[in-house]
Amino acid sequence: MTEPRSTATLARILFSPDGATTLGYEFVDAGSPQLLVTDVAATRGDGVFETISVGSGLPQALNPHLDRFAKSAALLDLPHPDLGVWRAAVHEAAATMADHDEAQVKLVLSRGVEGQPAPTGWVYASVAPDYRATRTIGIGVVLLDRGLAHNVAQTSPWLLAGAKTLSYAVNLAALREARRRGADDVVFVSSDGFLLEGPVSNLIIRRGMTLSTPRTDLGILTGTTQSDVFAWAESQGFATEQALLTPSDLTGADAAWLVSSVRHAAPLHAIDGSDFALDGELTAGINAALRARTG
Amino acid sequence: MTEPRSTATLARILFSPDGATTLGYEFVDAGSPQLLVTDVAATRGDGVFETISVGSGLPQALNPHLDRFAKSAALLDLPHPDLGVWRAAVHEAAATMADHDEAQVKLVLSRGVEGQPAPTGWVYASVAPDYRATRTIGIGVVLLDRGLAHNVAQTSPWLLAGAKTLSYAVNLAALREARRRGADDVVFVSSDGFLLEGPVSNLIIRRGMTLSTPRTDLGILTGTTQSDVFAWAESQGFATEQALLTPSDLTGADAAWLVSSVRHAAPLHAIDGSDFALDGELTAGINAALRARTG
Repeated sequence: MTEPRSTATLARILFSPDGATTLGYEFVDAGSPQLLVTDVAATRGDGVFETISVGSGLPQALNPHLDRFAKSAALLDLPHPDLGVWRAAVHEAAATMADHDEAQVKLVLSRGVEGQPAPTGWVYASVAPDYRATRTIGIGVVLLDRGLAHNVAQTSPWLLAGAKTLSYAVNLAALREARRRGADDVVFVSSDGFLLEGPVSNLIIRRGMTLSTPRTDLGILTGTTQSDVFAWAESQGFATEQALLTPSDLTGADAAWLVSSVRHAAPLHAIDGSDFALDGELTAGINAALRARTG
Repeated sequence: MTEPRSTATLARILFSPDGATTLGYEFVDAGSPQLLVTDVAATRGDGVFETISVGSGLPQALNPHLDRFAKSAALLDLPHPDLGVWRAAVHEAAATMADHDEAQVKLVLSRGVEGQPAPTGWVYASVAPDYRATRTIGIGVVLLDRGLAHNVAQTSPWLLAGAKTLSYAVNLAALREARRRGADDVVFVSSDGFLLEGPVSNLIIRRGMTLSTPRTDLGILTGTTQSDVFAWAESQGFATEQALLTPSDLTGADAAWLVSSVRHAAPLHAIDGSDFALDGELTAGINAALRARTG
């Protein structure tokens, strides 16, 4: 079974044979195989990606996502993506989702087929999962050791901390571990005890009128959604900060969220099996602001 | 450009739609796209693999590789691979390489296409790179911090240490870092100072008449080739051991190798830019023994 065509759109990015030039893009059948088994996307997780929320056909926070895409590519020594071509492909793919309130576009750039110089790139648009209940009911999380110290991005750049790579097996294994423990999601902690991020999200905590998120020099992804939440919160009178946070900062906070592009803000209602207070009013405000984003 | 058909063979493993049953395998065109862009092999590195050496059409150390393949799948909560089907597919794919002294077969099992229950599996046979010079001239290595403590496989199984996953972006980034430093390969070191493995190989050191390799409880892969080297070395009068080893054990050793299925034993001739003695006679003996393996 493959997905019905009407709910997915796929554009391939076209490169010159030597990989040096991005020629454009073309739409191809999303329901037909498009990748060789020797593409290092499939054999090595050797590439980068972004997932962008689409509201009624319009991509949200596109430029921050494209910037992060280029930054991830640089961390992996991939060719710099021609952002003009990718931007156009995203807009056109997103527009095919105009009939859907919530959709998503995924951008993938791999190093290409083994032994060949050109990278592989594609833009895939599909209907988003329905996260409306999650945004109000919230999620239970467990804290899991990410195994790496808080400063690995500085000491050991080859560990690719802070790059959004296709090598997400550990992220998914952590989510399965959370489910085994009766939870929905994960907050990673560094081996030396600092809060990091979720496997596919960023963490925000509220203490009084201050919103805090872990510092981006901790080998975590810069949060495009987190950044939009902070901008809106500042307009509402909140102070915001990037900080070194510990598990006790989280358990002692007034509220907390895992935020991500498509699910938006998921409020925490439990941490390691203990109930945690959920700020329904602020959560609703944040998610309304995220859904209202354009461009 | 795709590879000429004559030098690559591809078999797809066939699963029932619900993924519960492995039905068999079929040969398909290795030069045509076979994977959907929504296969989590390509989007998440969410799968496992093995690479097996093939000599004149016969797979080498097949059973240990299949055992490790199943162990990796279990660590990722993937369906247990039906090893009878995989074994038959490997034999048939390997046989197509009978005209080549050295070939390789790669086995890949991914969790499948997003939203669908069946996994994806394939067996890909191709001619091996020519490693003859590497086996005699040797390689320069650098020691790089793997970022994880030596006991993560016990404390944090969700980090998948010891599973051979498709998420190899860090392994490849480490190899690029080695090349930036003028070296060929890497010996990973745990964050607490113990020798681990190479990004795609196992480490063996010789001290007198003893061969040592890092213990497999250090979150490293069990070495199929390392095991065969030890069996041969014991027949030659060497003692062998799995041990906790430190960088000074390596630099003070009489000789050392990175061993892997297809490249076989690559002797170290430099460590972090310093010359290191190469044991040409023992290296030749090891590689002759590895090349002579059958079954």
